[in-house]
Amino acid sequence: MEPKSETRIEGYAADISSIREAQGRIKSFIRRTDVLTSKTLNALSGKHLFFKCECFLNGYIGSFKIRGACNAVFSLDDDQAAKGVVTQSSGNHGAALAFAAKMRGIPAYVAMPSIAPKCKFENVMRYDAQIIKCDPTLQSRETTASTIVQQTGAILIPSSNDPRIISGQGTMFLELLEQVPQLDTIIAPISGGGMIVGIDSLAAKSINPSIRVLAAGPSGANDAFQFEAAIKIIRLPETKTIADGLRAFLGNHTWPVLRDLVDDIILVEDDEIVEAMKLCYQVLKVAVAPSGAVALAVVLSKSFLNNPIWQNECNRIGIVFSGGNVDLGVLWESLRNLETRRFLPNTFLQVTSYTHLNY
Amino acid sequence: MEPKSETRIEGYAADISSIREAQGRIKSFIRRTDVLTSKTLNALSGKHLFFKCECFLNGYIGSFKIRGACNAVFSLDDDQAAKGVVTQSSGNHGAALAFAAKMRGIPAYVAMPSIAPKCKFENVMRYDAQIIKCDPTLQSRETTASTIVQQTGAILIPSSNDPRIISGQGTMFLELLEQVPQLDTIIAPISGGGMIVGIDSLAAKSINPSIRVLAAGPSGANDAFQFEAAIKIIRLPETKTIADGLRAFLGNHTWPVLRDLVDDIILVEDDEIVEAMKLCYQVLKVAVAPSGAVALAVVLSKSFLNNPIWQNECNRIGIVFSGGNVDLGVLWESLRNLETRRFLPNTFLQVTSYTHLNY
Repeated sequence: MEPKSETRIEGYAADISSIREAQGRIKSFIRRTDVLTSKTLNALSGKHLFFKCECFLNGYIGSFKIRGACNAVFSLDDDQAAKGVVTQSSGNHGAALAFAAKMRGIPAYVAMPSIAPKCKFENVMRYDAQIIKCDPTLQSRETTASTIVQQTGAILIPSSNDPRIISGQGTMFLELLEQVPQLDTIIAPISGGGMIVGIDSLAAKSINPSIRVLAAGPSGANDAFQFEAAIKIIRLPETKTIADGLRAFLGNHTWPVLRDLVDDIILVEDDEIVEAMKLCYQVLKVAVAPSGAVALAVVLSKSFLNNPIWQNECNRIGIVFSGGNVDLGVLWESLRNLETRRFLPNTFLQVTSYTHLNY
Repeated sequence: MEPKSETRIEGYAADISSIREAQGRIKSFIRRTDVLTSKTLNALSGKHLFFKCECFLNGYIGSFKIRGACNAVFSLDDDQAAKGVVTQSSGNHGAALAFAAKMRGIPAYVAMPSIAPKCKFENVMRYDAQIIKCDPTLQSRETTASTIVQQTGAILIPSSNDPRIISGQGTMFLELLEQVPQLDTIIAPISGGGMIVGIDSLAAKSINPSIRVLAAGPSGANDAFQFEAAIKIIRLPETKTIADGLRAFLGNHTWPVLRDLVDDIILVEDDEIVEAMKLCYQVLKVAVAPSGAVALAVVLSKSFLNNPIWQNECNRIGIVFSGGNVDLGVLWESLRNLETRRFLPNTFLQVTSYTHLNY
């Protein structure tokens, strides 16, 4: 990749330089994740799909969140780092921050709602972080985190609305574009919290300004979609979706990127997400979380199939599997409740195979 | 790999030459499957584990069975092939044979017990094979297959007790030893049908005579274990295990290999198999079927941990994930019923990561 061919996109919380710096900073902790392809899923979508498997990152962490957490922790100077880091998280970011802090040998404090599932507590405790339980409201979580900052002097590392986190997550798109240079489209999940697209479109558009970046979201947590109309940051009163990793909210660092650099937001229903998870499991044999499978759900959705622009112009599509931490019980219950809506034409399935790209 | 360094093992249904011929014959249909490693699972076992992911083969087929099926179908001459192929199978071999026949453009007939799960019928129908339903007894299955042979002139391709199948399956071990040359041990699942070890030890021992080959089986289907004592082929009156792919029986082509070339057979309980599946899912994010996870269950079992020879001499261990077709409902019910027997010491989990070997 020749740096001179890059477009300088400025005025946001991160840019291609800070993303490249992050890549150098985290490379000893973060392996380059695999890109999978599947003839079966290509046939089903009518497209060339390239699955970026962030679910394969670091065992139990199993999520892209470790990129931003490592970048944030290792960008602190020694004095800043000495007192540790703090965040509030009920999920992957807490475990990722605990991992990064342990790698640096500093304390980590994680404010977690007391009702969080046992496995999420375990994933944070695994790396010896100190857990401070709080009420399951955003206000209680934020207040608890602030109190820890005051008491310990630790540095607050938010889960997404932070330049260090944005630069770290952006490294995923650098990798993907190096692995599959001729992509014309990227589809990635978006949380209210600006999960990936609001963030990583910075990297993609810098390297290839003509690439189309589509955000995939669950219709039960569509604050980002409402942003498009409102052009302001709103917080939905309630979110309800199986994609629990996508229930967060956008912020002042992430929203401008989404507004300016993401081409479209496409919403899908929960049963479409569950069906995409099932395909990941049955065809690819890979565990993908609901919030990770939403981008595959989009490319198989009627909205996508019926849109002539996307059908004509989106052909080589990167699909981001953002994480793989899925509660088997939830998945199974969802599958049982799912009526099979999609009947696969026989021609789709005559030739099926599965390859990892070598790189 | 220099052929001159190989040991010539003769007098069995296949040898290193027929396995290398099979490798050439099937290479356009069978990709080299990935080998995964995990620091978490290394720490848990105290060994260096290398997971050979046959579950990644060819989408819905998702099993090593496609190797033997392709070798058998493509080793037929045109006259033999013209009338098609036939087998009896309730599982992966039927789908694999249907795939191979479709690739060659010849008919396939599969005798299947009428009570087989819907998904198994779908996997065979996907490749346009003709299904002939029969009773769910081995006798009915074999009689039905014979009748099809008589009526159609198609060639019978058994699921394992066949030189062409044995040579095809052996290609998996050729690959694994090329990918990880310093293995001192291989653990693979064994069915009564001689699933892998009875077969592939031919390849392993030819290339590296000092390699230790261990067969992993469920204690609920232990005919192979009983063979060790009886030194004759027996058929258990009943098999009962979650590892439904391991319920078949050994035959005259497979049993001598098992007897002479497999070093030990280690049995595990169903709850150990379920726990191994859970680790595959939670740590590796890979779907592994019960019959595929049995080799990981062995390396984590008390039998293995308490055996001083295995503990001292088995250090770099290839673990065969033979297939990935798992019924999520069965897995979930099993997990719910499983009491957590293993408490993971904290030190095991302080550093966790996951890598694909590049090759």
